[in-house]
Amino acid sequence: MARRRRVYEGKAKVLYEGPEPGTLVQYFKDDATAFNNKKSATIVGKGVLNNRISEYLMARIAEIGIPTHFVRRLNMREQLIKEVEIIPVEVIIRNISAGSLATRLGIPEGTALPRSIVEFCYKSDELGDPLITEEHITAFGWATPQEIDDIMAMSLRINDFLIGLFLGIGIKLVDFKLEFGRLYENEMVRVVLADEISPDNCRLWDTKTNEKMDKDRFRRDLGGVAEAYQEVARRLGIMPEGGPRDIQAPTLMQ
Amino acid sequence: MARRRRVYEGKAKVLYEGPEPGTLVQYFKDDATAFNNKKSATIVGKGVLNNRISEYLMARIAEIGIPTHFVRRLNMREQLIKEVEIIPVEVIIRNISAGSLATRLGIPEGTALPRSIVEFCYKSDELGDPLITEEHITAFGWATPQEIDDIMAMSLRINDFLIGLFLGIGIKLVDFKLEFGRLYENEMVRVVLADEISPDNCRLWDTKTNEKMDKDRFRRDLGGVAEAYQEVARRLGIMPEGGPRDIQAPTLMQ
Repeated sequence: MARRRRVYEGKAKVLYEGPEPGTLVQYFKDDATAFNNKKSATIVGKGVLNNRISEYLMARIAEIGIPTHFVRRLNMREQLIKEVEIIPVEVIIRNISAGSLATRLGIPEGTALPRSIVEFCYKSDELGDPLITEEHITAFGWATPQEIDDIMAMSLRINDFLIGLFLGIGIKLVDFKLEFGRLYENEMVRVVLADEISPDNCRLWDTKTNEKMDKDRFRRDLGGVAEAYQEVARRLGIMPEGGPRDIQAPTLMQ
Repeated sequence: MARRRRVYEGKAKVLYEGPEPGTLVQYFKDDATAFNNKKSATIVGKGVLNNRISEYLMARIAEIGIPTHFVRRLNMREQLIKEVEIIPVEVIIRNISAGSLATRLGIPEGTALPRSIVEFCYKSDELGDPLITEEHITAFGWATPQEIDDIMAMSLRINDFLIGLFLGIGIKLVDFKLEFGRLYENEMVRVVLADEISPDNCRLWDTKTNEKMDKDRFRRDLGGVAEAYQEVARRLGIMPEGGPRDIQAPTLMQ
């Protein structure tokens, strides 16, 4: 197979030139990082699981009428996506206090928030993804007021949908991060959901035990990271055939 | 004089029970703190100057139709104010990059911002006054959406007015902090400007030399703090009669 052009390499994914103009191949690595790269490790099988979980969630979200960059899964570690211009704003939707909200505002982890809260962070590893407001976003031209409105509306719909979906499989959606991009298609531009949705960027707690089923297991050295991701996939009904053996099998890209 | 009841003691001011119900006496101390109390000192004469400067600015702001808690100056270190319920949100209005904006977003200090930016911080020494958004303010009930709208509108008007006022005396208004409170009067409640406006909570740079004429002189150990505050008062045309001698004179409250 001819070597493809690498368009971008992030912490957990690589983007390659796609088979047609306007497409990219999104490759899911097993690499995990936390605390702005201060901690890193390889979690065998994570990429395979996140590729599956993100495929499933993106497809279900598209079905409720929210446009996404996702086209189709290509193989164990890769999916075909539409090329978008990423908006440099991370959108965090919170239902229960945890992580930086708990620390910054002194609200004990696990406290149900009075209502869902949407936060924006400036996507910059160098600056540690600082919290920003609509004021910063519009003043510096990172997104227009209309784009922020669209992002906010889509984020709240996705939150409602995912709260329900996870509730159905015994999981609390504590919080999660979304990214959006501008899709230029048919001489039009519109904002669509991009990146991935997986236990790498969601906080997922078992409804009964409050056990963490997400990247916090890695951040806080709780162990059983791959097993937790696998359990999420299992409950979503999307475990790859063959189970763990299949997950750890090498792929063409390795 | 009978000992008055102390209602509140902050870092730079003390509030005493006022002569009538619904009033307070705001006393300006010479104490200066920075970096969330990690650094502190006494700057002789600061309280007297801030009492004068804040009196002048609050009175001019009231004249353009923005309601404030200020009633009148009582003596060198005290002013009579209306008692309000302080909204636990610090409002920061920025025209030029400096301080935490420069650090957090990597925008070099001194860069003119594309437009004025209004930020909100949660008023909590314990948490280090963290940046918050309208989402946090409304979700936790710190202020209503209508109150935020009123605060935003008043803050932008005050900014326009103060930029002009300082421009006229050769000073750039880089940024400043405001606080607002709920005034219960005549069976109505409305949001009014509270606290103080002084070089303690404004960044003021000389137009020609960019020399700092504000609390950054203390924060950054530049020296000449009282002299800088005095120069601001002098340019505003409000130096107390008698000059420095008067400023350093003891008052009844000391």
